[in-house]
Amino acid sequence: MIRVGIVGATGYTAVELIKLLLRHPHVQITRLTSRSDTGQPIEQTHPSLRDRLNLALTEFELEDFVAHVDCGFCCLPHAASSPIVKQIVDRGVRVIDFSADYRLSSLEQFTRIYQVEHADAGRLGHVPYGLPELFADEIRTAELVANPGCFPTTAILALSPLIVAGAIARDDIIVDSKTGVSGGGRTPKLNFHFPECNESVTAYGLGTHRHGPEIGEILSRWTKQPVQVTFAPHLIPMDRGILSTIYVRPVGGWDAKRMQQQLAEFYADSVFVRISSALPTTKDVSFTNFCDITTRDMGSRVAIVSVIDNLIKGASGAAVQNMNVMYGWEQTLGVL
Amino acid sequence: MIRVGIVGATGYTAVELIKLLLRHPHVQITRLTSRSDTGQPIEQTHPSLRDRLNLALTEFELEDFVAHVDCGFCCLPHAASSPIVKQIVDRGVRVIDFSADYRLSSLEQFTRIYQVEHADAGRLGHVPYGLPELFADEIRTAELVANPGCFPTTAILALSPLIVAGAIARDDIIVDSKTGVSGGGRTPKLNFHFPECNESVTAYGLGTHRHGPEIGEILSRWTKQPVQVTFAPHLIPMDRGILSTIYVRPVGGWDAKRMQQQLAEFYADSVFVRISSALPTTKDVSFTNFCDITTRDMGSRVAIVSVIDNLIKGASGAAVQNMNVMYGWEQTLGVL
Amino acid sequence: MIRVGIVGATGYTAVELIKLLLRHPHVQITRLTSRSDTGQPIEQTHPSLRDRLNLALTEFELEDFVAHVDCGFCCLPHAASSPIVKQIVDRGVRVIDFSADYRLSSLEQFTRIYQVEHADAGRLGHVPYGLPELFADEIRTAELVANPGCFPTTAILALSPLIVAGAIARDDIIVDSKTGVSGGGRTPKLNFHFPECNESVTAYGLGTHRHGPEIGEILSRWTKQPVQVTFAPHLIPMDRGILSTIYVRPVGGWDAKRMQQQLAEFYADSVFVRISSALPTTKDVSFTNFCDITTRDMGSRVAIVSVIDNLIKGASGAAVQNMNVMYGWEQTLGVL
Amino acid sequence: MIRVGIVGATGYTAVELIKLLLRHPHVQITRLTSRSDTGQPIEQTHPSLRDRLNLALTEFELEDFVAHVDCGFCCLPHAASSPIVKQIVDRGVRVIDFSADYRLSSLEQFTRIYQVEHADAGRLGHVPYGLPELFADEIRTAELVANPGCFPTTAILALSPLIVAGAIARDDIIVDSKTGVSGGGRTPKLNFHFPECNESVTAYGLGTHRHGPEIGEILSRWTKQPVQVTFAPHLIPMDRGILSTIYVRPVGGWDAKRMQQQLAEFYADSVFVRISSALPTTKDVSFTNFCDITTRDMGSRVAIVSVIDNLIKGASGAAVQNMNVMYGWEQTLGVL
Repeated sequence: MIRVGIVGATGYTAVELIKLLLRHPHVQITRLTSRSDTGQPIEQTHPSLRDRLNLALTEFELEDFVAHVDCGFCCLPHAASSPIVKQIVDRGVRVIDFSADYRLSSLEQFTRIYQVEHADAGRLGHVPYGLPELFADEIRTAELVANPGCFPTTAILALSPLIVAGAIARDDIIVDSKTGVSGGGRTPKLNFHFPECNESVTAYGLGTHRHGPEIGEILSRWTKQPVQVTFAPHLIPMDRGILSTIYVRPVGGWDAKRMQQQLAEFYADSVFVRISSALPTTKDVSFTNFCDITTRDMGSRVAIVSVIDNLIKGASGAAVQNMNVMYGWEQTLGVL
Repeated sequence: MIRVGIVGATGYTAVELIKLLLRHPHVQITRLTSRSDTGQPIEQTHPSLRDRLNLALTEFELEDFVAHVDCGFCCLPHAASSPIVKQIVDRGVRVIDFSADYRLSSLEQFTRIYQVEHADAGRLGHVPYGLPELFADEIRTAELVANPGCFPTTAILALSPLIVAGAIARDDIIVDSKTGVSGGGRTPKLNFHFPECNESVTAYGLGTHRHGPEIGEILSRWTKQPVQVTFAPHLIPMDRGILSTIYVRPVGGWDAKRMQQQLAEFYADSVFVRISSALPTTKDVSFTNFCDITTRDMGSRVAIVSVIDNLIKGASGAAVQNMNVMYGWEQTLGVL
Repeated sequence: MIRVGIVGATGYTAVELIKLLLRHPHVQITRLTSRSDTGQPIEQTHPSLRDRLNLALTEFELEDFVAHVDCGFCCLPHAASSPIVKQIVDRGVRVIDFSADYRLSSLEQFTRIYQVEHADAGRLGHVPYGLPELFADEIRTAELVANPGCFPTTAILALSPLIVAGAIARDDIIVDSKTGVSGGGRTPKLNFHFPECNESVTAYGLGTHRHGPEIGEILSRWTKQPVQVTFAPHLIPMDRGILSTIYVRPVGGWDAKRMQQQLAEFYADSVFVRISSALPTTKDVSFTNFCDITTRDMGSRVAIVSVIDNLIKGASGAAVQNMNVMYGWEQTLGVL
Repeated sequence: MIRVGIVGATGYTAVELIKLLLRHPHVQITRLTSRSDTGQPIEQTHPSLRDRLNLALTEFELEDFVAHVDCGFCCLPHAASSPIVKQIVDRGVRVIDFSADYRLSSLEQFTRIYQVEHADAGRLGHVPYGLPELFADEIRTAELVANPGCFPTTAILALSPLIVAGAIARDDIIVDSKTGVSGGGRTPKLNFHFPECNESVTAYGLGTHRHGPEIGEILSRWTKQPVQVTFAPHLIPMDRGILSTIYVRPVGGWDAKRMQQQLAEFYADSVFVRISSALPTTKDVSFTNFCDITTRDMGSRVAIVSVIDNLIKGASGAAVQNMNVMYGWEQTLGVL
């Protein structure tokens, strides 16, 4: 039994994380911190937790946190996260960080993309990217793991095995992603106001969304080859789920069928990646940690369709899976 | 051709009103005022108006407004409305007011319910309630009309003919209403945030919602008998539409069938009220000015089901219908 | 470890049941029967089960079923269920039946309401109603349990403690329920076709829905007093969830606050019923086995708001909870 | 005043068409034909038309139809349409056909794609494609017009001006489209069943959807250059709206900004195509005949975003616009 704490416990990823952790046989939640609602029982912020977790939100205090927590989950936005994470990890407490602060390898790249200072630049390049399907070896012993972005998870899982197999052109990849609104967080804004986004679909961040470079960098890091993607996210009127349609140009005679076989072999031992011949829907993986993938011939191209629940495999489920790897437990504990 | 202006032109009722007025053969929109987005073309706030109305938002200025407007529509919240409306009407410009400020007859009642001061108390009791199906005679010559609340429209149209006919107990009426989220306005708030209200239904304002007393007062005013209702609104994950299920206790041997006949006769000449034997859905009246009503026996009670589009018959369509009555035009101009 | 089988395994309640049973530590699913899709892996019908349950659908055969199943779940429609259930129970296999066939006590009442013959009339009156919060003693030793209707669950849990306390008039109860579309089943029909029910709300079955008499009968059975309710269901554009707004007339000076205390005391040991002062939303209980209840004063009436997930506490979660009671396990196993 | 009739009047495109025609100053609806619901008032099939159109559905009979109709709208599926259309047009009545039967130029191509016989092959190659923005000259005098497919409308309007300007590679175009569910028609099917497609997004018809070749052929016909597109449609949980994200490879130094200028100039006189710098949402054009388009640089590619209401500009609005052109009326009559 380990003690876990969550920093930034009022958002959607945090409440999903709490629900998963409540089902986990080896953990006890001991701290929930926040800058708002402090002093109040967590169930006032998240009524779905009524009678399930008798714990109040507290302001983050380093001494208290490290004294009561063996493994911390940090659910803060980028730039707000690294100053806190640095302190916790420096004190020897392991951390899984949900922000983008530790996903990229170099300070230069981080600064160019996020346009902010980094509070813990010395760790960049030494933090494993939290996709256990690809980086389990490094995650196992890590003090700090960078939980992946939701969109990148769909794309990286779909593309990695194909790039290393030499099946596709590395400079001609388009990722067209569709996401539910919970991906935008819990802070009310006009573009997430129900009468604005309901019964509507829109593209956003075309050419500028930060998950584009993240996909490229992690694919490059893992495949050890330069990879570039064109990334376009879209907002869909539903709570949760991401479907990415990935257009690739096959090389060397590869087609959809062979790609599917390659994916199936590659993920034969990865319980959370399911390769199928049917077109998956986001509902097939809703409220689960699965990523379902299939492939289709499209004339001179192949389309790869990859779906996840953005709050589970795209955030909190992946975090628990990472924790399981870090502590040597079954990857499925609490997330199946 | 008359010149019309809208005060408070950035909300949902205003944009619906603009779209209706653009189709109206006898009006020209000359002024759109607002406290935010001033100086910008209206299409920046409402992209659906792109290329349809070449007019910028301006700050409200009395002299300018009354010089360029023959009929004003005031889309401000209660308490914010009457200070403006008073000035405009005092200058001889006719006004249709969307707020609750002029719906009730007495200052005492207004103050008790809304807990604010009234800037134009002298007019209370002299402003017709803008349901042309019931108050057309007074609306015809009015300088100022109080546009009805959205929930009250469903209930008052359904109940008035039955009360005057002596068909139901006046002290045992329950109005259970279900509304789309646009009724909550365009300002982002947590309870209207997509991931909060999507895939969810909730009751709100039980025992305290201000439309309860409004229904009671207008029914009493029109029927000249004391009427009291129990009113409970619910938030439904859809953009627009209100369905009210009204539970009444029949007296004197009345049943659902006879009530339906009474309603059909009463509204025989009211083009926008459709009495049918089928259960209406809100979609049947979506984007229209219709109110569809039916009745059903429920043992010792009768249920009356009444549906409208909250933004049209519940707000902007009713306003245009009122304008048509005020100017002696066909009630359907621009709203059919 | 017991072996469980599901009869009628292609619908929405069945797939939810399978997911719950897969998490249950003491059961193994051995049979899934169906009249369609037989011979195919269950994951072809329910892709969300991909790689999670390696079992094919088979036609129901009595000998095979009773040889491989210790506890059966029957997810067939009313009238189709009792002929099968009778055979299984006669062979000594315990059954939890999802249909309405065994919920009422008398053949006369069943025939009047359902207008069909009953294949197992001899058992009527001897089958406990599967609400463990009220009938746990009888469920514990039952060979057959009648799983409750979804709407009745919300109403019976809310009303039972108030009726026995003498807090409300037993002949003046209105239950206005709002349900998600999954309650209508998995067979495509025009009224559940997406473009028909999306962005729309409608009442249905007013004065005729069979859950009205079910609520009345079970309340009467448990409280040993005659109870009658007026019941009106409404279809809401969401997947799952039921919110019932129940209008009661307090007697003997009871008010909302005292009713809430009574409910809280009554359910103090019932982990799945949560009494709160806040207005619950269906989302608070989505994908859980909880029923959240609160009360509000409404002038001469009190409104009680009660919410569940129609597929969990309203069907499959209740069934697993019943199984837990029948086998002497913790009620929460597999459903928390 | 001309007399119009609709063949196949029970679907979603037909009811939208009726609503538009009821607002049109120069037409009278005289015939509504159908194979189901015949003999019944149209308002029984479409309750939204209650009291608005007093006309019953009749079985299609040629003599009766051509005697009472000057302009026919045929809303039948492909293959079912041409046998009827042929008869009507042969009798000298002008027709606007909603099906795919007359959109392609050659029998060979039609047969290859649709795999059925064509009942009126002689007319192929002589029927204008009903996009007045591109083919107004031919539509003006046509006896028969092929109303465009919904997806092709978004893509052809966006791409045509860029291809003729030589701005993009003609063999490297990807059209990723997102559509509301009404595009799937009014016949209940499992994949359009509310609990299946709500809260879910899915790709379909990848590599096989017939609108892919339609886009290619019409672009080739209009630009007189060979054009090929990769087309992937997706189903979105909303009633109506299509958003297409079109990935093109610029040539000759063109970028997003210059493309936007080219589009703006090209459509300067086309009232229904609005080029803007903001990213359009489908809601911006909901319930209108507008197509909103913008462009964005995406590294080595440019993304063009194009939105319509699939039932209006993608079907019935386009049909009325075509009729207006055929009769020499303002293009906006009844559709603005």
